[in-house]
Amino acid sequence: MEITEKERDAVYKTIFARRDVRSDFTKQEIKDDVIKRILTAAHHAPSVGFMQPWDFIVVTDIATKKKIKAGFEQSNAASKKMFSEEQQQKYQQLKLEGILEAPLGICVTCDRSRNGPVVLGKTIKEEMDLYSAVCAVQNLWLAARAENLGVGWVSIIEDDILRGALGIPKNIEIIAYLCIGYVTKFKEKPELESAGWLPRRSVDKAIHYNKWSTENL
Amino acid sequence: MEITEKERDAVYKTIFARRDVRSDFTKQEIKDDVIKRILTAAHHAPSVGFMQPWDFIVVTDIATKKKIKAGFEQSNAASKKMFSEEQQQKYQQLKLEGILEAPLGICVTCDRSRNGPVVLGKTIKEEMDLYSAVCAVQNLWLAARAENLGVGWVSIIEDDILRGALGIPKNIEIIAYLCIGYVTKFKEKPELESAGWLPRRSVDKAIHYNKWSTENL
Repeated sequence: MEITEKERDAVYKTIFARRDVRSDFTKQEIKDDVIKRILTAAHHAPSVGFMQPWDFIVVTDIATKKKIKAGFEQSNAASKKMFSEEQQQKYQQLKLEGILEAPLGICVTCDRSRNGPVVLGKTIKEEMDLYSAVCAVQNLWLAARAENLGVGWVSIIEDDILRGALGIPKNIEIIAYLCIGYVTKFKEKPELESAGWLPRRSVDKAIHYNKWSTENL
Repeated sequence: MEITEKERDAVYKTIFARRDVRSDFTKQEIKDDVIKRILTAAHHAPSVGFMQPWDFIVVTDIATKKKIKAGFEQSNAASKKMFSEEQQQKYQQLKLEGILEAPLGICVTCDRSRNGPVVLGKTIKEEMDLYSAVCAVQNLWLAARAENLGVGWVSIIEDDILRGALGIPKNIEIIAYLCIGYVTKFKEKPELESAGWLPRRSVDKAIHYNKWSTENL
Protein backbone atom coordinates (compact mmCIF):
# COMPACT_ATOMS: atom_id res chain seq x y z
CA MET A 1 0.00 0.00 0.00
CA GLU A 2 1.51 3.29 -1.14
CA ILE A 3 1.80 6.20 1.26
CA THR A 4 1.45 9.51 -0.59
CA GLU A 5 3.70 12.53 0.02
CA LYS A 6 0.85 14.32 1.77
CA GLU A 7 0.30 11.35 4.06
CA ARG A 8 4.02 11.13 4.73
CA ASP A 9 4.08 14.79 5.72
CA ALA A 10 1.18 14.19 8.12
CA VAL A 11 3.20 11.44 9.80
CA TYR A 12 6.22 13.74 10.18
CA LYS A 13 4.03 16.58 11.45
CA THR A 14 2.64 14.25 14.13
CA ILE A 15 6.07 12.90 15.11
CA PHE A 16 7.55 16.39 15.49
CA ALA A 17 4.50 17.85 17.27
CA ARG A 18 4.34 15.04 19.86
CA ARG A 19 5.11 16.16 23.39
CA ASP A 20 5.42 14.60 26.83
CA VAL A 21 2.47 16.40 28.42
CA ARG A 22 2.34 17.05 32.16
CA SER A 23 0.15 20.16 32.32
CA ASP A 24 -2.45 21.88 30.14
CA PHE A 25 -4.87 18.90 30.34
CA THR A 26 -8.57 19.78 30.05
CA LYS A 27 -11.49 17.86 31.50
CA GLN A 28 -13.00 17.24 28.04
CA GLU A 29 -14.31 13.70 27.84
CA ILE A 30 -12.48 11.25 25.57
CA LYS A 31 -15.05 9.22 23.66
CA ASP A 32 -14.87 5.43 23.80
CA ASP A 33 -14.28 5.10 20.07
CA VAL A 34 -11.24 7.40 20.30
CA ILE A 35 -9.83 5.30 23.16
CA LYS A 36 -10.45 2.17 21.14
CA ARG A 37 -8.65 3.65 18.12
CA ILE A 38 -5.49 4.58 20.02
CA LEU A 39 -5.42 1.18 21.75
CA THR A 40 -5.89 -0.59 18.42
CA ALA A 41 -2.94 1.40 17.06
CA ALA A 42 -0.89 0.28 20.08
CA HIS A 43 -1.99 -3.32 19.48
CA HIS A 44 -0.59 -3.11 15.93
CA ALA A 45 2.95 -2.40 17.12
CA PRO A 46 5.67 -4.78 16.03
CA SER A 47 6.18 -7.65 18.45
CA VAL A 48 8.89 -10.25 18.64
CA GLY A 49 7.69 -13.60 17.31
CA PHE A 50 4.23 -11.94 16.96
CA MET A 51 3.74 -12.62 20.69
CA GLN A 52 1.79 -9.38 21.31
CA PRO A 53 2.85 -9.41 24.97
CA TRP A 54 1.10 -6.18 25.95
CA ASP A 55 -2.07 -5.43 27.89
CA PHE A 56 -3.64 -2.04 28.52
CA ILE A 57 -5.34 -1.10 31.78
CA VAL A 58 -7.59 1.89 31.21
CA VAL A 59 -7.82 3.96 34.41
CA THR A 60 -10.69 6.37 35.04
CA ASP A 61 -11.46 5.61 38.71
CA ILE A 62 -10.60 8.58 40.94
CA ALA A 63 -9.67 6.57 44.02
CA THR A 64 -7.27 4.52 41.93
CA LYS A 65 -5.69 7.64 40.44
CA LYS A 66 -5.24 9.07 43.95
CA LYS A 67 -3.29 5.98 45.02
CA ILE A 68 -1.08 6.35 41.98
CA LYS A 69 -0.59 10.06 42.62
CA ALA A 70 0.41 9.39 46.24
CA GLY A 71 2.96 6.85 44.98
CA PHE A 72 4.39 9.41 42.59
CA GLU A 73 4.68 12.03 45.36
CA GLN A 74 6.67 9.64 47.50
CA SER A 75 9.01 8.58 44.69
CA ASN A 76 9.43 12.12 43.50
CA ALA A 77 10.48 13.39 46.95
CA ALA A 78 13.08 10.62 47.16
CA SER A 79 14.24 11.29 43.60
CA LYS A 80 14.72 15.02 44.11
CA LYS A 81 17.30 14.36 46.81
CA MET A 82 19.49 12.47 44.34
CA PHE A 83 20.34 15.68 42.44
CA SER A 84 22.86 18.41 43.26
CA GLU A 85 21.54 21.38 45.21
CA GLU A 86 21.53 23.56 42.12
CA GLN A 87 19.62 20.93 40.14
CA GLN A 88 17.15 20.47 43.01
CA GLN A 89 16.15 24.12 42.64
CA LYS A 90 15.23 23.54 39.02
CA TYR A 91 13.80 20.07 39.65
CA GLN A 92 11.19 21.20 42.12
CA GLN A 93 9.90 23.80 39.68
CA LEU A 94 9.15 21.15 37.06
CA LYS A 95 5.70 19.57 36.84
CA LEU A 96 6.41 15.93 36.13
CA GLU A 97 2.96 14.29 35.90
CA GLY A 98 -0.72 14.96 35.31
CA ILE A 99 -2.17 11.89 37.04
CA LEU A 100 -5.23 13.56 38.55
CA GLU A 101 -5.84 16.22 35.89
CA ALA A 102 -5.76 13.90 32.88
CA PRO A 103 -9.15 12.23 32.41
CA LEU A 104 -7.53 8.96 31.39
CA GLY A 105 -4.67 6.82 32.62
CA ILE A 106 -3.39 3.85 30.67
CA CYS A 107 -0.99 1.32 32.14
CA VAL A 108 0.90 -0.72 29.54
CA THR A 109 2.18 -4.11 30.70
CA CYS A 110 4.18 -7.01 29.26
CA ASP A 111 3.42 -10.69 29.82
CA ARG A 112 6.85 -12.22 29.31
CA SER A 113 5.58 -15.79 29.38
CA ARG A 114 2.84 -15.33 26.81
CA ASN A 115 2.78 -18.09 24.20
CA GLY A 116 5.20 -20.34 26.02
CA PRO A 117 8.81 -20.34 27.17
CA VAL A 118 10.53 -20.17 23.77
CA VAL A 119 9.65 -17.20 21.58
CA LEU A 120 10.89 -16.71 18.03
CA GLY A 121 13.27 -13.74 17.94
CA LYS A 122 13.74 -13.72 21.70
CA THR A 123 16.10 -16.67 21.87
CA ILE A 124 19.23 -14.49 21.89
CA LYS A 125 17.97 -11.07 22.96
CA GLU A 126 15.77 -11.75 26.00
CA GLU A 127 14.53 -8.18 26.35
CA MET A 128 12.81 -8.16 22.96
CA ASP A 129 9.37 -8.71 24.53
CA LEU A 130 9.80 -5.65 26.75
CA TYR A 131 10.93 -3.66 23.72
CA SER A 132 7.84 -4.80 21.79
CA ALA A 133 5.63 -3.40 24.53
CA VAL A 134 7.57 -0.12 24.39
CA CYS A 135 6.87 0.04 20.63
CA ALA A 136 3.18 -0.28 21.54
CA VAL A 137 3.57 2.72 23.86
CA GLN A 138 5.08 4.79 21.05
CA ASN A 139 2.33 3.75 18.59
CA LEU A 140 -0.25 4.76 21.18
CA TRP A 141 1.51 8.07 21.79
CA LEU A 142 1.59 9.01 18.11
CA ALA A 143 -2.00 7.86 17.53
CA ALA A 144 -3.07 9.98 20.49
CA ARG A 145 -1.19 12.99 19.12
CA ALA A 146 -2.95 12.45 15.78
CA GLU A 147 -6.22 12.64 17.76
CA ASN A 148 -4.96 15.89 19.35
CA LEU A 149 -4.64 14.12 22.69
CA GLY A 150 -1.73 14.84 24.99
CA VAL A 151 0.16 11.95 26.57
CA GLY A 152 2.62 12.00 29.48
CA TRP A 153 4.72 9.04 30.62
CA VAL A 154 5.00 8.90 34.43
CA SER A 155 8.20 7.04 35.23
CA ILE A 156 8.84 8.37 38.74
CA ILE A 157 6.79 5.72 40.50
CA GLU A 158 7.54 2.32 42.00
CA ASP A 159 6.11 -0.67 40.12
CA ASP A 160 4.70 -1.97 43.41
CA ILE A 161 2.42 1.08 43.72
CA LEU A 162 0.93 0.44 40.28
CA ARG A 163 0.78 -3.29 41.01
CA GLY A 164 -1.22 -2.63 44.16
CA ALA A 165 -3.50 0.05 42.72
CA LEU A 166 -4.29 -1.92 39.56
CA GLY A 167 -4.06 -5.51 40.81
CA ILE A 168 -1.28 -6.44 38.42
CA PRO A 169 0.14 -9.93 39.13
CA LYS A 170 3.82 -10.36 39.96
CA ASN A 171 4.61 -12.20 36.74
CA ILE A 172 3.45 -9.28 34.59
CA GLU A 173 6.00 -6.54 33.87
CA ILE A 174 4.96 -2.91 34.11
CA ILE A 175 6.20 -0.90 31.14
CA ALA A 176 4.50 2.50 31.40
CA TYR A 177 1.85 4.54 33.13
CA LEU A 178 0.49 7.16 30.74
CA CYS A 179 -1.69 10.20 31.46
CA ILE A 180 -3.92 11.10 28.54
CA GLY A 181 -6.29 13.96 27.76
CA TYR A 182 -7.14 16.83 25.48
CA VAL A 183 -5.01 19.91 26.13
CA THR A 184 -5.32 23.68 25.94
CA LYS A 185 -2.13 23.67 23.87
CA PHE A 186 0.87 21.59 22.85
CA LYS A 187 4.14 23.26 23.76
CA GLU A 188 6.44 24.32 20.91
CA LYS A 189 9.41 22.49 22.40
CA PRO A 190 9.92 19.77 25.00
CA GLU A 191 9.51 21.28 28.47
CA LEU A 192 12.93 20.15 29.68
CA GLU A 193 14.51 21.87 26.67
CA SER A 194 12.65 25.16 27.28
CA ALA A 195 13.40 25.00 31.00
CA GLY A 196 17.12 24.74 30.26
CA TRP A 197 17.43 21.31 31.87
CA LEU A 198 19.28 19.94 28.81
CA PRO A 199 19.73 21.19 25.23
CA ARG A 200 18.62 19.34 22.09
CA ARG A 201 21.58 17.38 20.78
CA SER A 202 22.40 17.94 17.11
CA VAL A 203 21.10 15.00 15.08
CA ASP A 204 24.36 14.99 13.09
CA LYS A 205 26.23 14.07 16.26
CA ALA A 206 23.97 11.05 16.65
CA ILE A 207 24.73 9.66 13.19
CA HIS A 208 27.75 7.43 12.59
CA TYR A 209 28.83 5.75 9.35
CA ASN A 210 29.73 2.05 9.28
CA LYS A 211 31.68 2.36 12.56
CA TRP A 212 31.06 3.91 15.94
CA SER A 213 32.88 7.22 15.91
CA THR A 214 34.00 8.95 19.07
CA GLU A 215 34.37 12.17 17.09
CA ASN A 216 30.59 12.45 17.27
CA LEU A 217 30.47 12.50 21.03
CA MET B 1 -0.70 22.60 16.55
CA GLU B 2 -3.91 20.96 15.36
CA ILE B 3 -3.80 17.65 13.48
CA THR B 4 -6.65 17.46 10.97
CA GLU B 5 -8.82 14.37 10.46
CA LYS B 6 -7.12 13.70 7.13
CA GLU B 7 -3.71 13.87 8.76
CA ARG B 8 -4.90 11.62 11.57
CA ASP B 9 -6.07 9.06 9.04
CA ALA B 10 -2.66 9.17 7.35
CA VAL B 11 -1.02 8.35 10.68
CA TYR B 12 -3.35 5.39 11.24
CA LYS B 13 -2.85 4.19 7.66
CA THR B 14 0.92 4.21 8.24
CA ILE B 15 0.66 2.46 11.62
CA PHE B 16 -1.54 -0.33 10.25
CA ALA B 17 0.45 -0.75 7.03
CA ARG B 18 3.82 -1.03 8.84
CA ARG B 19 5.40 -4.48 8.54
CA ASP B 20 8.51 -6.24 9.78
CA VAL B 21 10.14 -6.77 6.39
CA ARG B 22 12.57 -9.63 5.79
CA SER B 23 12.14 -10.19 2.06
CA ASP B 24 10.95 -8.23 -0.98
CA PHE B 25 13.75 -5.65 -0.63
CA THR B 26 14.89 -4.01 -3.88
CA LYS B 27 18.30 -2.55 -4.67
CA GLN B 28 16.85 0.93 -5.26
CA GLU B 29 19.13 3.54 -3.72
CA ILE B 30 17.87 5.43 -0.67
CA LYS B 31 18.74 9.08 -1.06
CA ASP B 32 20.69 10.81 1.70
CA ASP B 33 17.90 13.28 2.43
CA VAL B 34 15.46 10.41 2.99
CA ILE B 35 17.90 8.74 5.41
CA LYS B 36 18.33 12.07 7.19
CA ARG B 37 14.56 12.51 7.50
CA ILE B 38 13.93 9.12 9.09
CA LEU B 39 16.87 9.58 11.49
CA THR B 40 15.61 13.04 12.43
CA ALA B 41 12.21 11.48 13.18
CA ALA B 42 13.96 8.90 15.38
CA HIS B 43 15.88 11.69 17.10
CA HIS B 44 12.57 13.35 18.02
CA ALA B 45 11.37 10.37 20.04
CA PRO B 46 10.49 10.95 23.68
CA SER B 47 13.45 10.47 26.00
CA VAL B 48 13.60 10.25 29.76
CA GLY B 49 14.94 13.48 31.24
CA PHE B 50 15.48 14.66 27.63
CA MET B 51 18.73 12.65 27.69
CA GLN B 52 18.48 11.56 24.00
CA PRO B 53 20.59 8.49 24.74
CA TRP B 54 20.49 7.05 21.22
CA ASP B 55 23.02 6.93 18.39
CA PHE B 56 22.51 5.58 14.89
CA ILE B 57 25.18 3.70 12.96
CA VAL B 58 24.32 3.72 9.27
CA VAL B 59 25.67 0.57 7.61
CA THR B 60 26.28 0.37 3.87
CA ASP B 61 29.65 -1.41 3.79
CA ILE B 62 29.33 -4.89 2.27
CA ALA B 63 32.12 -6.51 4.30
CA THR B 64 30.50 -5.23 7.50
CA LYS B 65 27.11 -6.57 6.47
CA LYS B 66 28.67 -9.97 5.73
CA LYS B 67 30.09 -10.16 9.26
CA ILE B 68 26.65 -9.35 10.65
CA LYS B 69 24.99 -11.91 8.39
CA ALA B 70 27.45 -14.60 9.53
CA GLY B 71 26.62 -13.74 13.14
CA PHE B 72 22.93 -14.09 12.42
CA GLU B 73 23.44 -17.49 10.74
CA GLN B 74 25.24 -18.79 13.81
CA SER B 75 22.64 -17.47 16.27
CA ASN B 76 19.78 -18.66 14.12
CA ALA B 77 21.11 -22.22 13.92
CA ALA B 78 21.42 -22.30 17.72
CA SER B 79 17.98 -20.74 18.14
CA LYS B 80 16.23 -23.23 15.88
CA LYS B 81 17.23 -26.09 18.15
CA MET B 82 15.37 -24.53 21.06
CA PHE B 83 11.99 -25.25 19.47
CA SER B 84 9.98 -28.46 19.36
CA GLU B 85 10.50 -30.65 16.32
CA GLU B 86 7.18 -29.59 14.84
CA GLN B 87 8.02 -25.92 15.34
CA GLN B 88 11.48 -26.44 13.84
CA GLN B 89 9.85 -27.52 10.60
CA LYS B 90 7.98 -24.24 10.40
CA TYR B 91 10.89 -22.20 11.78
CA GLN B 92 13.33 -23.16 9.07
CA GLN B 93 10.89 -22.11 6.37
CA LEU B 94 10.72 -18.57 7.73
CA LYS B 95 13.01 -15.87 6.36
CA LEU B 96 14.02 -13.90 9.43
CA GLU B 97 16.33 -11.17 8.10
CA GLY B 98 17.33 -9.21 5.01
CA ILE B 99 20.82 -8.15 6.08
CA LEU B 100 22.52 -8.49 2.69
CA GLU B 101 19.55 -7.66 0.45
CA ALA B 102 18.54 -4.43 2.18
CA PRO B 103 20.68 -1.55 0.92
CA LEU B 104 20.82 0.01 4.36
CA GLY B 105 21.42 -1.24 7.89
CA ILE B 106 20.92 0.98 10.92
CA CYS B 107 22.12 0.00 14.38
CA VAL B 108 20.39 1.89 17.20
CA THR B 109 22.33 2.15 20.45
CA CYS B 110 21.81 3.59 23.93
CA ASP B 111 24.44 5.45 25.95
CA ARG B 112 23.21 4.84 29.49
CA SER B 113 25.68 7.23 31.07
CA ARG B 114 24.92 10.20 28.82
CA ASN B 115 24.49 13.44 30.74
CA GLY B 116 25.79 12.07 34.02
CA PRO B 117 24.89 9.46 36.58
CA VAL B 118 21.53 10.86 37.78
CA VAL B 119 18.89 11.32 35.11
CA LEU B 120 15.51 12.94 35.70
CA GLY B 121 12.78 10.29 35.36
CA LYS B 122 15.25 7.40 35.59
CA THR B 123 15.74 7.58 39.35
CA ILE B 124 13.15 4.88 40.07
CA LYS B 125 12.79 3.04 36.77
CA GLU B 126 16.36 2.37 35.62
CA GLU B 127 15.37 0.95 32.24
CA MET B 128 13.76 4.19 31.03
CA ASP B 129 16.81 5.12 28.92
CA LEU B 130 16.64 1.81 27.07
CA TYR B 131 12.91 2.35 26.53
CA SER B 132 13.59 5.84 25.16
CA ALA B 133 15.91 4.34 22.54
CA VAL B 134 13.20 1.80 21.64
CA CYS B 135 10.77 4.70 21.10
CA ALA B 136 13.34 6.10 18.66
CA VAL B 137 13.29 2.76 16.80
CA GLN B 138 9.51 2.91 16.49
CA ASN B 139 9.59 6.54 15.29
CA LEU B 140 12.17 5.55 12.69
CA TRP B 141 10.07 2.55 11.63
CA LEU B 142 6.92 4.61 11.10
CA ALA B 143 8.80 7.42 9.33
CA ALA B 144 10.38 4.83 7.04
CA ARG B 145 6.95 3.31 6.30
CA ALA B 146 5.69 6.80 5.49
CA GLU B 147 8.56 6.98 2.97
CA ASN B 148 7.45 3.59 1.58
CA LEU B 149 10.59 1.99 2.98
CA GLY B 150 10.48 -1.46 4.53
CA VAL B 151 12.18 -2.06 7.88
CA GLY B 152 13.05 -5.36 9.55
CA TRP B 153 14.37 -5.73 13.10
CA VAL B 154 17.05 -8.45 13.34
CA SER B 155 17.03 -9.69 16.92
CA ILE B 156 18.55 -13.14 16.40
CA ILE B 157 22.14 -12.00 16.74
CA GLU B 158 24.59 -11.70 19.62
CA ASP B 159 25.44 -8.16 20.72
CA ASP B 160 29.14 -9.08 20.56
CA ILE B 161 28.91 -9.68 16.81
CA LEU B 162 27.48 -6.20 16.24
CA ARG B 163 29.95 -4.76 18.72
CA GLY B 164 32.85 -6.28 16.78
CA ALA B 165 31.55 -5.45 13.31
CA LEU B 166 30.66 -1.85 14.15
CA GLY B 167 33.27 -1.01 16.80
CA ILE B 168 30.70 -0.29 19.48
CA PRO B 169 32.31 0.25 22.93
CA LYS B 170 31.35 -1.99 25.85
CA ASN B 171 29.59 0.79 27.75
CA ILE B 172 27.13 1.41 24.91
CA GLU B 173 24.01 -0.80 24.84
CA ILE B 174 22.83 -2.25 21.57
CA ILE B 175 19.09 -1.83 21.09
CA ALA B 176 18.36 -2.86 17.51
CA TYR B 177 19.83 -3.75 14.14
CA LEU B 178 17.44 -2.71 11.39
CA CYS B 179 17.45 -3.65 7.69
CA ILE B 180 15.97 -0.92 5.51
CA GLY B 181 15.09 -0.62 1.84
CA TYR B 182 12.41 -0.05 -0.74
CA VAL B 183 10.30 -3.14 -1.37
CA THR B 184 8.39 -4.75 -4.22
CA LYS B 185 5.39 -4.91 -1.88
CA PHE B 186 4.28 -4.67 1.72
CA LYS B 187 2.53 -7.82 2.89
CA GLU B 188 -1.17 -7.53 3.84
CA LYS B 189 -0.59 -9.15 7.23
CA PRO B 190 2.42 -9.85 9.46
CA GLU B 191 4.33 -12.83 8.03
CA LEU B 192 4.13 -14.83 11.25
CA GLU B 193 0.35 -14.40 11.25
CA SER B 194 0.00 -15.55 7.60
CA ALA B 195 2.39 -18.44 8.19
CA GLY B 196 0.20 -19.68 11.05
CA TRP B 197 2.95 -19.23 13.63
CA LEU B 198 0.58 -17.37 15.97
CA PRO B 199 -2.84 -15.73 15.47
CA ARG B 200 -3.61 -12.03 16.03
CA ARG B 201 -4.98 -11.63 19.54
CA SER B 202 -8.28 -9.79 19.80
CA VAL B 203 -7.62 -6.22 20.95
CA ASP B 204 -10.61 -6.48 23.32
CA LYS B 205 -8.77 -9.17 25.25
CA ALA B 206 -5.87 -6.77 25.72
CA ILE B 207 -8.00 -4.05 27.31
CA HIS B 208 -8.74 -4.05 31.04
CA TYR B 209 -10.71 -1.48 33.01
CA ASN B 210 -9.30 -0.01 36.26
CA LYS B 211 -8.06 -3.45 37.40
CA TRP B 212 -6.13 -6.27 35.80
CA SER B 213 -8.72 -8.85 34.81
CA THR B 214 -7.88 -12.50 34.35
CA GLU B 215 -11.11 -12.92 32.39
CA ASN B 216 -9.32 -11.27 29.49
CA LEU B 217 -6.61 -13.86 29.30
